[in-house]
Amino acid sequence: MDTKKLYEGKAKIIYATEDAAKVIQYFKDDATAFNNVKKDNISGKGILNNFISEYVMLLLKNNDIPTHFIKRLDERRQLVTKLDIFPLEVIIRNQAAGSICKRLGIAEQTVFNPALLEFCYKKDEYGDPVINDEHIRVLNLANPDELEQIKELTLKINQILSKAFADINIKLIDFKIEFGKDSDGKIMLADEISPDSCRLWDMNSNEKMDKDRFRLDLGDLTKYYQEIADRFNIEVNYA
Amino acid sequence: MDTKKLYEGKAKIIYATEDAAKVIQYFKDDATAFNNVKKDNISGKGILNNFISEYVMLLLKNNDIPTHFIKRLDERRQLVTKLDIFPLEVIIRNQAAGSICKRLGIAEQTVFNPALLEFCYKKDEYGDPVINDEHIRVLNLANPDELEQIKELTLKINQILSKAFADINIKLIDFKIEFGKDSDGKIMLADEISPDSCRLWDMNSNEKMDKDRFRLDLGDLTKYYQEIADRFNIEVNYA
Repeated sequence: MDTKKLYEGKAKIIYATEDAAKVIQYFKDDATAFNNVKKDNISGKGILNNFISEYVMLLLKNNDIPTHFIKRLDERRQLVTKLDIFPLEVIIRNQAAGSICKRLGIAEQTVFNPALLEFCYKKDEYGDPVINDEHIRVLNLANPDELEQIKELTLKINQILSKAFADINIKLIDFKIEFGKDSDGKIMLADEISPDSCRLWDMNSNEKMDKDRFRLDLGDLTKYYQEIADRFNIEVNYA
Repeated sequence: MDTKKLYEGKAKIIYATEDAAKVIQYFKDDATAFNNVKKDNISGKGILNNFISEYVMLLLKNNDIPTHFIKRLDERRQLVTKLDIFPLEVIIRNQAAGSICKRLGIAEQTVFNPALLEFCYKKDEYGDPVINDEHIRVLNLANPDELEQIKELTLKINQILSKAFADINIKLIDFKIEFGKDSDGKIMLADEISPDSCRLWDMNSNEKMDKDRFRLDLGDLTKYYQEIADRFNIEVNYA
């Protein structure tokens, strides 16, 4: 079914299909961090992210969030709506962790209530810099109405996911999402939502269950990703 | 008249006076750039900035902008209202120049209309990072009402100054200002407005008439600062 490779990112590949409105999203095992300085290949990571992201996208769909997700095809591939992606990393933080602590001198675990919303300009050559609404305007990254929709959707997604993770005894510390527009201009959640794109801490032990296990050399990454799948009762089928 | 040194910055010193509501702002000849990596002492710079900033502050006062400026005392000192300074660098850009070009890949001289407003967190140890309204909220740097006032005042100041500089054949490319609150909570423009804190280009030749002459090793800094004073008909009296 998949044909031409349209785009290869750090952890995924996008392939064309016979239907111009749909593409295939393929989950690789590659892991990168710190703007590509740290790299590895973690066997089985892509499969786990594919299944977990499927579960999360369906959960959001059932909560009236428009997403690009159509269906999972196999262990590494999803059929998704082809979108024109906004070059924005939308980051929402419920507690301080990672880059923001060093960047602004905020103590780790500081609670943000309401959650803190950040945008980065998705441009590797500039190191994905933090930008404000004014930069989004002058760079034409999204118009004011689109930006408003993106913000509203992100806050809703955070509410839905914070509850869903809390229900399996996990704190959603922060996450990064991306949005795009379909051919009618409808804004949809794109990319993936997985332990690669979220910080997820066990509620009792505060153990990290996400990509920080790779970033910080904590090891056992797939064990923790599998644990998340297990808590959601996701049956991950390895081919 | 001046007594205790309250604060020493890169280019100015603040001294207490007998009146707790007033302080003295002393203009040094020191120049720094690139977060203190480049340093020099440029004889006479402080005197020129004192006189130019006096002129600009009075111009703004006469246009109903609240400022801390009370009066110039001598060639290097001003009496100003003591303020509780917001730890924010407020930057407004009419055209792209300097850091924003490298940071976001924007071509130099790109026109921003309306002007582009940016905030940096005034914290040397973190390199004065760019922040958005959300960071200002979680860091408690200003409350929403104060932030709104700061934005409105900055846009007004930009209008007044763009016209004033255009009248002397100079383009106001961008500038950095700071605000503070007096003991009644009234928000006022603080610090200085001078060729140290503005990018000013001659309208005909595009020659730089500001601190970029130091940053970029173009030389003749005081010649150009004097030229700005001359065009405003400011009589700079050296003691």
